[in-house]
Amino acid sequence: MGNILCGVDIGGTKLSVALVTDDGKVIDKCLEGDHTEKSECGLTDQIKFNIRKLLKRNNLTESDLCGIGIGCAGHIRFSDGTIITTSNLKGFKGYPLRREIQSGFEVPVILDNDANAQAFGEFRFGAGRGYEHMVFLTISSGIGAGIIINKSLYRGFTGTAGEFGHTIIEPGSDMMCTCGNKGCLMAVACGMALPHLFAKKLHEGKISKIELPADFDFSKVDGKLIKHGLDIDDPVSQEIVSEIGHYMGIGIYNIFQALNPQLIVLGGGLLSWGDIFLDKIRKTFYELARDMIFDPVEIKLTEIGPDAGVIGAASLSLGKC
Amino acid sequence: MGNILCGVDIGGTKLSVALVTDDGKVIDKCLEGDHTEKSECGLTDQIKFNIRKLLKRNNLTESDLCGIGIGCAGHIRFSDGTIITTSNLKGFKGYPLRREIQSGFEVPVILDNDANAQAFGEFRFGAGRGYEHMVFLTISSGIGAGIIINKSLYRGFTGTAGEFGHTIIEPGSDMMCTCGNKGCLMAVACGMALPHLFAKKLHEGKISKIELPADFDFSKVDGKLIKHGLDIDDPVSQEIVSEIGHYMGIGIYNIFQALNPQLIVLGGGLLSWGDIFLDKIRKTFYELARDMIFDPVEIKLTEIGPDAGVIGAASLSLGKC
Repeated sequence: MGNILCGVDIGGTKLSVALVTDDGKVIDKCLEGDHTEKSECGLTDQIKFNIRKLLKRNNLTESDLCGIGIGCAGHIRFSDGTIITTSNLKGFKGYPLRREIQSGFEVPVILDNDANAQAFGEFRFGAGRGYEHMVFLTISSGIGAGIIINKSLYRGFTGTAGEFGHTIIEPGSDMMCTCGNKGCLMAVACGMALPHLFAKKLHEGKISKIELPADFDFSKVDGKLIKHGLDIDDPVSQEIVSEIGHYMGIGIYNIFQALNPQLIVLGGGLLSWGDIFLDKIRKTFYELARDMIFDPVEIKLTEIGPDAGVIGAASLSLGKC
Repeated sequence: MGNILCGVDIGGTKLSVALVTDDGKVIDKCLEGDHTEKSECGLTDQIKFNIRKLLKRNNLTESDLCGIGIGCAGHIRFSDGTIITTSNLKGFKGYPLRREIQSGFEVPVILDNDANAQAFGEFRFGAGRGYEHMVFLTISSGIGAGIIINKSLYRGFTGTAGEFGHTIIEPGSDMMCTCGNKGCLMAVACGMALPHLFAKKLHEGKISKIELPADFDFSKVDGKLIKHGLDIDDPVSQEIVSEIGHYMGIGIYNIFQALNPQLIVLGGGLLSWGDIFLDKIRKTFYELARDMIFDPVEIKLTEIGPDAGVIGAASLSLGKC
């Protein structure tokens, strides 16, 4: 087998397939946005087709690949490469995606949760290089995470370890997560919480500097709108970022107490909020952890950048090189 | 080296030293209750003396031992065998106990947190036999835990992983933990919470069937008093057990989401409350986990019994046999 990696990132808006060097650089990639409309077979064929297309246009063959890594949002049973549930795609409940892709290739195919893939990418090529134990958290519309223990991904029994987003940190909260529970980290501290928080602040009489139409649909409040609010010194946006930063600080403190990692790496869309967000996360974390930090714990930003999805997915096949 | 294990359990009320077979049976042990008054050197000498005494009275020599395992409550830096902090003993901050004990013996000495030791004992000899990933939780006056990942203890960077007791699950709580934070699992869901909860219930006008003197010191409310309350159908005790069970259910749910273990084993004094407690823990856990359990998760009681402290400590040396 060769030493080029292939990464497939099945996202909520884009299907990305890339060829990646074994030191984590994207050689070539293709992006498509119509994959969420496809059937199980349709998406499987699209992935196979795109991998072959990329190989061909780079004058490569399958024998140049180490393996194919696929990252997909949702609950993945790692042992048999099955998508148990995913909210991005239609169907795909209990779908053996790894087996279906593997049927088209000789090189090993690995399917994992997208946050696990990014965590491993970060560990191999990014902020986590050289660390033994680290946790990667992605904070965007939802919260995903991956755990590196003893320089390997820790996936747990089914393969769903690292679902810190579903840990309950505010049992009395009225904020509901897509999982059906109230008060889990994902309900209170990511993009999902923004519509509720924004509407609540206005309802409490807070004045926002963001100009909104009279019939504004609050379900449209997202990280970008809040970023715009920060840019114009909107006090409502600042309060929301502070509140979410506070909860993320608690979430990271809980991870610190549970797993005692050396490093926590943060990625995801909400980090574009900048220092006001990161400072609040760190402030809450250090206020809680205080004299219980016996060896330095670092909280860093992702370093593998905008191609984190495919680079992470590609990194999954590194053990197969 | 031989195949007999030596376990030392430095508890809050007793110092226990035992010889244990390599299948987890206590051969002989000695208990002393004066160790918490001793100096660092005094306790070190007491441990060395008791190990030698036990060997002698069983017609054994050091060459019959695999190693000596020591379990101690508190934060332990595993890499250098140092007690960082412990609330049971006077002094011992940054004390290199492993090195000091090792100076008296040729066989390897291992020092670890007492809950880690019990977790490993449970994995090798108790409810965790044959599992790959498990978490052990001990619920008594405080909460301790140990994590088994890939059939090994996972200790984290410093050695303090598994401090689920200090994870925040009720940020708005007024209940304070010894760590200085409010609303961590230990503040709301173990023996430490009982005085506050009991006084609060009476203050709210609840009537307890437990007969208490007029000048009763509520700081004396402990697990045994609540157990007595359960035995006489005291509604206040029942409410408290239900409340603590609910929070423990949340704590265990959070562990499930974070680590996706196959098994969670519960031990510690409060489990003597019986089914009313365990049923509430399980009820809350399953209500939260619902359709997110994709492979069975077991919640079991400890099986290594009253000698769990020394058996767990002894098990630490198993890797050295």
